[in-house]
Amino acid sequence: MEPAIKYRLIHQDKYTGARTGEIITPHGTFPTPMFMPVGTQASVKSIAPEELDEMGAGIILANTYHLWLQPGEDLVEQAGGLHKFMNWDKGILTDSGGFQVFSLAKHRDIKEEGVTFKDPSSGRTMFLSPEKAIQVENALGPDIMMSFDECPPYFETYDYIKKSVERTSRWAERGLKAHQNPTNQGLFGIVQGAGFKALRQQSARDLVSMDFPGYSVGGLSVGESKEEMNRVLEFTTPLLPENKPRYLMGVGTADSLIDGVIRGIDMFDCVLPTRIARNGTCMTSHGRLVVKNSQYARDFNPLDDNCDCYVCRNYTRAYIRHLIHVNETFGIRLTSYHNLYFLIHLMEDMREAIKNDQVLEFREMVFEQYGFNEENARNF
Amino acid sequence: MEPAIKYRLIHQDKYTGARTGEIITPHGTFPTPMFMPVGTQASVKSIAPEELDEMGAGIILANTYHLWLQPGEDLVEQAGGLHKFMNWDKGILTDSGGFQVFSLAKHRDIKEEGVTFKDPSSGRTMFLSPEKAIQVENALGPDIMMSFDECPPYFETYDYIKKSVERTSRWAERGLKAHQNPTNQGLFGIVQGAGFKALRQQSARDLVSMDFPGYSVGGLSVGESKEEMNRVLEFTTPLLPENKPRYLMGVGTADSLIDGVIRGIDMFDCVLPTRIARNGTCMTSHGRLVVKNSQYARDFNPLDDNCDCYVCRNYTRAYIRHLIHVNETFGIRLTSYHNLYFLIHLMEDMREAIKNDQVLEFREMVFEQYGFNEENARNF
Repeated sequence: MEPAIKYRLIHQDKYTGARTGEIITPHGTFPTPMFMPVGTQASVKSIAPEELDEMGAGIILANTYHLWLQPGEDLVEQAGGLHKFMNWDKGILTDSGGFQVFSLAKHRDIKEEGVTFKDPSSGRTMFLSPEKAIQVENALGPDIMMSFDECPPYFETYDYIKKSVERTSRWAERGLKAHQNPTNQGLFGIVQGAGFKALRQQSARDLVSMDFPGYSVGGLSVGESKEEMNRVLEFTTPLLPENKPRYLMGVGTADSLIDGVIRGIDMFDCVLPTRIARNGTCMTSHGRLVVKNSQYARDFNPLDDNCDCYVCRNYTRAYIRHLIHVNETFGIRLTSYHNLYFLIHLMEDMREAIKNDQVLEFREMVFEQYGFNEENARNF
Repeated sequence: MEPAIKYRLIHQDKYTGARTGEIITPHGTFPTPMFMPVGTQASVKSIAPEELDEMGAGIILANTYHLWLQPGEDLVEQAGGLHKFMNWDKGILTDSGGFQVFSLAKHRDIKEEGVTFKDPSSGRTMFLSPEKAIQVENALGPDIMMSFDECPPYFETYDYIKKSVERTSRWAERGLKAHQNPTNQGLFGIVQGAGFKALRQQSARDLVSMDFPGYSVGGLSVGESKEEMNRVLEFTTPLLPENKPRYLMGVGTADSLIDGVIRGIDMFDCVLPTRIARNGTCMTSHGRLVVKNSQYARDFNPLDDNCDCYVCRNYTRAYIRHLIHVNETFGIRLTSYHNLYFLIHLMEDMREAIKNDQVLEFREMVFEQYGFNEENARNF
């Protein structure tokens, strides 16, 4: 059987091994490395599908947990699937709901069978298992589905993480068996193991033996340092097959994207660009810019003078600051657009740098300009 | 001197006298009758300028009162004027702030010189006069400016309204003298007089003698019935010059737009379409549709099956209802877009009906389909 998701390598940077390629999905092919905007509730907050397309997003995320609760996967299925429901005909990836169960839900009870928890918004008692997650994802109909995994706290004991990794492997296998639509939806495995090399090896070995069409590195960007994340990536990505996509979950700062690609990652997602945008904070080539601050009240420059996005071509900091100041939602639309474009465009530049074997020079230039090389560099 | 704003009549309906034409401004020509979207704070809520253009809005409104307070007219002037500030190169009309002073401000003190009041958001004591309003409007730089008028309550005594009308005429004259940029900005006079024919006549006579390039009918849509509004329009619009634009302020329901055009009106504005959109209410050819209601949860039809707008071509009631239900702002973007398109398109159809001398048939068809002919018809 032909897998639903295929990876084609185009070029690897001579010095770092960073790779550029493309991922072929049932809804089109997108170039990698790629940053994927997050549309938790079947909408990338305040942004239209046409705008995502225009900024070069070949794939977006949606969240199984949220859509399972509202509007319900059966409604989305009745609508003709997530693509049709939200008017987006390119790639969609859904997480499994595992991360949300472990981060949002209250009164959690984790058993081998699955997780019982209370939905914080409705108060209802819910049960999510590997089979249930896959059933929901099959109904939603994304191109890429994630396995239902246990996402443990990063700083736990070896024994705790080992048990969690083994359960995640058993859950991955159960998910694979439950998967009803492997020709049109590719199910990815999630490598766990926190900071323990032996456990990352064990997790990768288990999952690779199950022959998923792609793999993600999970359990990172949950509070550990950037150095720690890079250390883990360095010994984890080499454990993954070279002919399949590699996805680092929940990472959305410019430095971590670049450092992730250098360590062999192809795909990233994060709510960060749209979340900080709603607070009037922008990502620019010169670093973080809090455009709502009063210093920009009469600043008639674009958000980023190195950016050619719709927002930077048409609007000034003063105008955007005014909109945010008087609670006009169009301001947030503009900052959200710009931030998403910034990360998508950063990965576009990264692809060029890889093709030219200039990844290290590119990293140095971006880090220097953004201010990541400074002491006490701000986080995003 | 050539006036900044010109009107060209194209055709009048044989049976009603409803007229279609075009208004020539320093920022382009737009066809009439026209509904003008309101961008109170230099943004039509949640909608981009390109979208306004796409839906056929040849002119939009902004509010002098709001922009005077925030970000301040000097900042907008420094930005290169309102068109450049908000990235809109077609027509802009600003009100004078008069209506807001009378409707929003607290602790108002009206004197012949002007109005002293407390700004409700900052608590500052402010003073607005005919000269100050014009100075602010000159700095903002719209194509059409409105005179600073007194907008009295509708149901007041003849003597009260007579004094108010006379003051409004004196204020209009002071504004005309204060106007610094008549070659690029057309200042309109506002006819007041509540429901009194003699006072409307007096107001119109005063203002017409001052030779404004356009006139509005003010003091309507403030609580009186639709029949009453139509009665006043019937004797007021014939008092206005045929070779100049006529603008009915603050009207935005489908029935009132049609009935206004039949009585000789060319331009309308109202916050209604975007305001009700934010509450999940849509205008459709079949009447008002509260899409957030649970009955639309699994309704996969467009908002309006007779509408060819971006929203109706791409999204279902079920999806929009979901977005509003889970507080995704993209839902409000969609309902706002649709409602604005609905009124702009209604006026486009009206222009066609006028050209074909079929205004009464068109009115009957729209009223019947929308439900305006029913007993206890809903207001919008």
